Amino acid sequence: MSVLVVGSTALDSIKTPSRENSRLLGGSASHAAVAASFFGPVKLVGIVGEDFPKRYVRLYRRHGIDLEGLQTAPGKTFHWAGEYEVNMNNRRTLTTELGVFETFSPNLPAAYQQTPFVLLANIAPALQHHVLDQMRRPRFVIADTMDLWLNIALPDLLKLLRRIDAFVLNDGEAHQLTKEDNVFAALRKIHKLGPKYVIIKKGSHGSILSGPNGFFLAPAYPLRKVVDPTGAGDTFVGAMTGYLAGARGPLDANLRRAIIHGSVVASFCCEGFGLMRTTRVTHETIDRRVKELEKLVRF
Amino acid sequence: MSVLVVGSTALDSIKTPSRENSRLLGGSASHAAVAASFFGPVKLVGIVGEDFPKRYVRLYRRHGIDLEGLQTAPGKTFHWAGEYEVNMNNRRTLTTELGVFETFSPNLPAAYQQTPFVLLANIAPALQHHVLDQMRRPRFVIADTMDLWLNIALPDLLKLLRRIDAFVLNDGEAHQLTKEDNVFAALRKIHKLGPKYVIIKKGSHGSILSGPNGFFLAPAYPLRKVVDPTGAGDTFVGAMTGYLAGARGPLDANLRRAIIHGSVVASFCCEGFGLMRTTRVTHETIDRRVKELEKLVRF
Repeated sequence: MSVLVVGSTALDSIKTPSRENSRLLGGSASHAAVAASFFGPVKLVGIVGEDFPKRYVRLYRRHGIDLEGLQTAPGKTFHWAGEYEVNMNNRRTLTTELGVFETFSPNLPAAYQQTPFVLLANIAPALQHHVLDQMRRPRFVIADTMDLWLNIALPDLLKLLRRIDAFVLNDGEAHQLTKEDNVFAALRKIHKLGPKYVIIKKGSHGSILSGPNGFFLAPAYPLRKVVDPTGAGDTFVGAMTGYLAGARGPLDANLRRAIIHGSVVASFCCEGFGLMRTTRVTHETIDRRVKELEKLVRF
Repeated sequence: MSVLVVGSTALDSIKTPSRENSRLLGGSASHAAVAASFFGPVKLVGIVGEDFPKRYVRLYRRHGIDLEGLQTAPGKTFHWAGEYEVNMNNRRTLTTELGVFETFSPNLPAAYQQTPFVLLANIAPALQHHVLDQMRRPRFVIADTMDLWLNIALPDLLKLLRRIDAFVLNDGEAHQLTKEDNVFAALRKIHKLGPKYVIIKKGSHGSILSGPNGFFLAPAYPLRKVVDPTGAGDTFVGAMTGYLAGARGPLDANLRRAIIHGSVVASFCCEGFGLMRTTRVTHETIDRRVKELEKLVRF
């Protein structure tokens, strides 16, 4: 089954202690859509400016991504520039130029409105709502977010939590949302806000799924070197949703392996700037890391 | 087979946001020895003052711990007082009264010198060396440490690393020792310092074993509420070593389950002040949590 991905489509200029790359393909929707594309058909909803490089359109197409929902508007593509500190854990934003993104309204083509899996990648909750308003009974809706929306759009986000099946956030955001330091106490509070499934991302410490069948403690794939973690969270949720949409059998039974596939594709994302490494991923390399993870946690 | 445990034997006064308890049985050797005792015979090496409560001697005995190596000296027992912050992650030391510990020399009774498993729990590296000097060809030596010794006794610690089979430290200490932020890069450097096995503790994020057979990513048992984490690390390494000493078959094959048993007994430790919860642990409750962890990581 196919996945609809809505989120930001951007150009990222990324500086790390070792290198600098400007105007890479970035944005939550780009990372999530490419990651999901390894498992089945993907429909993208986003907006770019007239300066959006043709090669990035070709990149989307090479991954079989349906671009009917990608709007091109007069003006410039959303541009983000950021710099990572030596330990690659902290980053600071150098520039945010919203460009055409400022007036983005994610209107869905008719052919998108019955997509069974909906991934509301990181974007303003009001836009996530707007997409849901246009969907006809999706089978599974998953939403990602970021601290920014907890700060400036909390009421919208809280309303969204009552409309989705699964919510993905990181441990810092879970703390911010619930005021609970303990992640398991935080999970209980987040479920009360609506979502049946909650996934808390802990970066290199892995992630935790919480749902009606209890917890799943998922490992991160061990990496000795992180080149650029930008988009790893978007990649995680993209691959996870793609896997779920492509898997047979009941959703509940597929969720754990979906999260593992999310971890694995996210590990590739971290090994290159922007989408450079992710785009070269194959089914064989994914399967190999999934099998490695199986061995790494077995006891 | 039996385990020799050397470390500190102390009285702990612990303040958390919800409660305060003074002069509890504490110290790295107390936590480690009680934890190891669930799996087989334990020999304790330590020192206490004349003020050491008789009930704590009875507590050791109830756990079948051999006290021939526990010296009683004129003066006061090592007393530590500390306070945890609201989130239970940070603690500050209020008092450290070394008492009889200041002149402690861990001289082993003859009956201790052939113990096959040696756990050098957290204590000055010079004293860990002194214990090793008296041992006759132990089968397996494991050492724990703390940031203090990295700061004030690094040369002794580095020498120790060449004399032990396994080294246990937390992620902050691994960073301090190697200047590597990435835990897998740090592990590689620590192996080069000597130990065949290295275990990095990450608190609620679990732990990582690194050895000739690669990595093992071990989960922590999920706790919604931590009452008092004092001694959890000592408990972890104690239960782990006790399990290893009690298990049949090659050590390499038992290490993963040993770490899981360490995680589980440490989770009980966190659920009560001092040793209050740990001492009430049974084989049934340990086995139940081990089985739960199996289910929590399976995919």
